[in-house]
Amino acid sequence: MQVIRDPQKLILALKKSKAGKNKTIGFVPTMGAMHTGHLNLIKQAAKDNHIVAVSIFVNPQQFGPGEDLKFYPRPLKKDIQLCRKQGVDFIFLPDNKIMYPDGYSTFINVGRLSHLLCGAKRPGHFRGVATVVAKLLNIVKPDNLYLGQKDAQQAIIISRMIKDLNFPVKVNVLPIVRFKDGLALSSRNTYLNKNERTSAVVLFKALRLAEILVSNGQRNANRIISRMSQLIEKNKKAKIDYIAIVNQEQLKEMKKVKTGSLIALAVKIGKTRLIDNTIIGCI
Amino acid sequence: MQVIRDPQKLILALKKSKAGKNKTIGFVPTMGAMHTGHLNLIKQAAKDNHIVAVSIFVNPQQFGPGEDLKFYPRPLKKDIQLCRKQGVDFIFLPDNKIMYPDGYSTFINVGRLSHLLCGAKRPGHFRGVATVVAKLLNIVKPDNLYLGQKDAQQAIIISRMIKDLNFPVKVNVLPIVRFKDGLALSSRNTYLNKNERTSAVVLFKALRLAEILVSNGQRNANRIISRMSQLIEKNKKAKIDYIAIVNQEQLKEMKKVKTGSLIALAVKIGKTRLIDNTIIGCI
Repeated sequence: MQVIRDPQKLILALKKSKAGKNKTIGFVPTMGAMHTGHLNLIKQAAKDNHIVAVSIFVNPQQFGPGEDLKFYPRPLKKDIQLCRKQGVDFIFLPDNKIMYPDGYSTFINVGRLSHLLCGAKRPGHFRGVATVVAKLLNIVKPDNLYLGQKDAQQAIIISRMIKDLNFPVKVNVLPIVRFKDGLALSSRNTYLNKNERTSAVVLFKALRLAEILVSNGQRNANRIISRMSQLIEKNKKAKIDYIAIVNQEQLKEMKKVKTGSLIALAVKIGKTRLIDNTIIGCI
Repeated sequence: MQVIRDPQKLILALKKSKAGKNKTIGFVPTMGAMHTGHLNLIKQAAKDNHIVAVSIFVNPQQFGPGEDLKFYPRPLKKDIQLCRKQGVDFIFLPDNKIMYPDGYSTFINVGRLSHLLCGAKRPGHFRGVATVVAKLLNIVKPDNLYLGQKDAQQAIIISRMIKDLNFPVKVNVLPIVRFKDGLALSSRNTYLNKNERTSAVVLFKALRLAEILVSNGQRNANRIISRMSQLIEKNKKAKIDYIAIVNQEQLKEMKKVKTGSLIALAVKIGKTRLIDNTIIGCI
């Protein structure tokens, strides 16, 4: 496994590694602080491709002022060990200066999609995400890109950008990985104290409630959201940021739940903002 | 020579054409209505590369409301003949719907650079340019990109985007091609009537004046601009849009002319907006 900090060196190393053969590259972009969710993406990339590249970069452009850029966990040694164990071929480990040198000017906007749900609460966030992913795609030139369904809006926006800008890469979105009690794995879970960790399961519970309501025949989005809100509000540590039932293509709010509807929510548990979601199966 | 309208087909054809060999692709993006300026780019691309691809696409995203999208010349047959004569391998000829299908959402902004000079007069223009070039780069995946110095700001913005987003392509900017009387070749020259065509040489004359003033020791940008303005204003058909003396990196206005300064201007001749520029050599 090679750990490479310089984009030009990575480009050359990948070229050499592919040289002349029809080898495919699977790419997993991360901000590090890896958990089983990331490792699942890496495993799938290894299964599908000859070469696996992982980037670890806490991208300052996707953090707003007052957000947790400074405190975001950076257990780099552990991350590198985990990657090695999974048979990763290349870790791309750039720094801010090489990604955004003096005079850097270019940003990618994915329109309306970026201003809804999490985008409404985190202005500039998805601009930062789209921009860094475009840069990483141009450096790594993967055949397959692996993203987690946990960040549903992110996966939708990146997929839209890739389609719109004709990036020659296939997007693979893998299911959310959860703890036994249902909490979705997230690098930000480390911010939770013991009581908050217990409370945090309320996001999953609200989604389960929604699924049960739907499977019992409820289709009215407002009523489902209202029941989810009630459940969450019972928990004193929890503060709802948003709950939304939308279609996956345009993130458009739906009055009636349908097959493929995305139910997404963001909830603050103490000071920690957590997100989670579910996609409604065939109904 | 193959004329291909579908991006996926072009991607496959180029892949086949490159297959297994270390062949390079030279790419010339155009809006058609080709003149010797374009042909020079194609010639250079053919000289430098094994494979030459040219795109012809009048990109609606880079025209503002009230601009000449509808009237922009589209002599397609002639363009295809010219390309064939130059030994072009692939013409990419997409339509609006395949480039910007329903739901298209993604746009690239190259910050401040896009809002100065021509960008100040044509809001959204360079956003459209950057976006379509990114799309074309992802489809054609060229090793070398060829641009004309006539559109100096465009070349600067595209170069900035390519650097910022790590597009793996080398930018080659080729000199302005001029008629004997000095007028820069432009697809928009066809809009000029006979009298306007005579007047249009005033852009070149103003640039020549600036060069002479500089070579005579004048360094004060305001004085040079003032002399250029006087010269242009003598011509009743000419209306100055802007005259600027800037550095090439940031298009920042300069008080003193230096080696490498860009002197750029846009002038309306009748209803036709023309641009031209010169770069100050070693002084």
